[in-house]
Amino acid sequence: MSEIGIMEWAKKVRENDRMAAAKLISAIERKEKVARDVLKHLFIPVGKTTVLGVTGSAGAGKSCLVSCLIGAYRKRGKTVGVIAVDPSSPFTGGAFLGDRLRMQAHGRDRGVYIRSMASRGYLGGLARGTVDAMRVMEAMGHDVVIVETIGTGQDEVDVARLVQTCLLVLTPTMGDDIQALKAGIMEIAQVVVLNKTDMPGKQKALLELEVALKMRRVEEEGWPVPVVPAVATTGEGIDEVMDQIEKHQVHMRKGDGLKQYAFQKAEKEGSVIIKDEIERVIFDHIRGTGLRRKYLDKIVAGEIDPYTAVEEVMALFIKKSKKHIQVQ
Amino acid sequence: MSEIGIMEWAKKVRENDRMAAAKLISAIERKEKVARDVLKHLFIPVGKTTVLGVTGSAGAGKSCLVSCLIGAYRKRGKTVGVIAVDPSSPFTGGAFLGDRLRMQAHGRDRGVYIRSMASRGYLGGLARGTVDAMRVMEAMGHDVVIVETIGTGQDEVDVARLVQTCLLVLTPTMGDDIQALKAGIMEIAQVVVLNKTDMPGKQKALLELEVALKMRRVEEEGWPVPVVPAVATTGEGIDEVMDQIEKHQVHMRKGDGLKQYAFQKAEKEGSVIIKDEIERVIFDHIRGTGLRRKYLDKIVAGEIDPYTAVEEVMALFIKKSKKHIQVQ
Repeated sequence: MSEIGIMEWAKKVRENDRMAAAKLISAIERKEKVARDVLKHLFIPVGKTTVLGVTGSAGAGKSCLVSCLIGAYRKRGKTVGVIAVDPSSPFTGGAFLGDRLRMQAHGRDRGVYIRSMASRGYLGGLARGTVDAMRVMEAMGHDVVIVETIGTGQDEVDVARLVQTCLLVLTPTMGDDIQALKAGIMEIAQVVVLNKTDMPGKQKALLELEVALKMRRVEEEGWPVPVVPAVATTGEGIDEVMDQIEKHQVHMRKGDGLKQYAFQKAEKEGSVIIKDEIERVIFDHIRGTGLRRKYLDKIVAGEIDPYTAVEEVMALFIKKSKKHIQVQ
Repeated sequence: MSEIGIMEWAKKVRENDRMAAAKLISAIERKEKVARDVLKHLFIPVGKTTVLGVTGSAGAGKSCLVSCLIGAYRKRGKTVGVIAVDPSSPFTGGAFLGDRLRMQAHGRDRGVYIRSMASRGYLGGLARGTVDAMRVMEAMGHDVVIVETIGTGQDEVDVARLVQTCLLVLTPTMGDDIQALKAGIMEIAQVVVLNKTDMPGKQKALLELEVALKMRRVEEEGWPVPVVPAVATTGEGIDEVMDQIEKHQVHMRKGDGLKQYAFQKAEKEGSVIIKDEIERVIFDHIRGTGLRRKYLDKIVAGEIDPYTAVEEVMALFIKKSKKHIQVQ
């Protein structure tokens, strides 16, 4: 695509053209080079948008909570963009419609834009696509951008660190395996929502959460993580969730907080992009050379171990010395 | 460490020296170069070991099922190695003791070796450490190696593809979010265990699973995925699970099945290792140059977009041409 075509595409996205945005996110998912070119023109001043994360394991009621949040923000006149990251088949690469269907209530509202993302193939994971989609959503000019993810794995942690306020959704009914999960993801949450508190086990869960939160080793200064009981299906507790988000937003934006966030975001974003781009470059280098097949055959035949094989392949395209790196 | 020291270390691991194996896995977790050197000497002929995966979301009862499987294999005189991949704090890098405690019953049995893995920091994820630990467990000479993981995210899918027979553990009590999860991970499971069938919802869940399995787009030829109802806490259904594992093992090893598996394993293992090694190389290149800080400052100041920044950084250490790649 010509540079003019790319600029035009980026302009349309910035003007909140849904078709242009949808096309761009699809290009991102397909890892097309043109996506990267358009993204370069989607600068967004950090802080304009409220960027929220909603994370938690399957069945916790994340989508339902997101739906409540959309409703609450719409009542306040805010526009909302949602990125729902669905686990998807590694074979088909298809995303599931569950979340979209659940959010159908907001489907005809022009102030709401919902997009499901598939995390596919081993050539790049969930993190990169989500990072890029977040940039698109922010560029479109939504007041609020919400990213919904399942809270396990490194990709999830990466995404959670890119948002300003991260909500962790838990339920009182989950098994004791949840303990470990909670402790892992808890460090990155700014607000914990204990959902489904109409079910038994509420008090016990609140107590456990209190203990778990006390055990956090890293804490955002001056921000004790609140636990908000809620029943997302009825909307109970949502006002309190909104209050806590607002409070954290005020806290986060205090002093040079926004600059710190911008720095942290650039760091994380850069690290996600570089990992992904490098994979692309490697595969570009190797494609069509027969190198891959040669090494696989050797490994299967027991002639070489995979560690040495990787070293040999890398030596072919990575410069040895770092002497040439000069910082002006 | 000297080459002789490295050879000696590898030899000890192959002789089932637990101390040597534990030290090696710790070195793997700390991403020490010496770990890679020792791993190079741990060749294992593919197929000797039965390699199982047990996956499923938090609270499904994976650890409990693994404990049952250990018991069943021990009764048959087989030795078992277990790798339990725990979600862990991104800040502390600590693994949780839950699984280990749960498996304490097998703690004093010399025929069982259990190891928890932490998935830490963004410099390399769960997949690489697990791949390496699997190699260690196989080299130790265990008859059976079991990898227990939480079934979401790309890393998990990577790990599931490295095992011979993958068990997916589900429960009838999980919310409807589980639908998506199931569909995503289901493609890589060879046996589905519906655990906790003493709870309500068994028939409905079995029906749903039947439908979901029919919708699979990719199927292992000649292997219709069985669903086995079980109650891991009482051992109910474990005999049937063992039968199905055995049946799949026979199926998988038929014809040139084992060679196909070896090829697939080498492919996956190579792809996991190369991603990880390249990250290491990049960070080695950039460390101490001031480059990282320079670009972060520029991004925060809005002087450059992260995509262009990454391109500029990569140009510094990746060879432009692929003409020099020659396959002999």
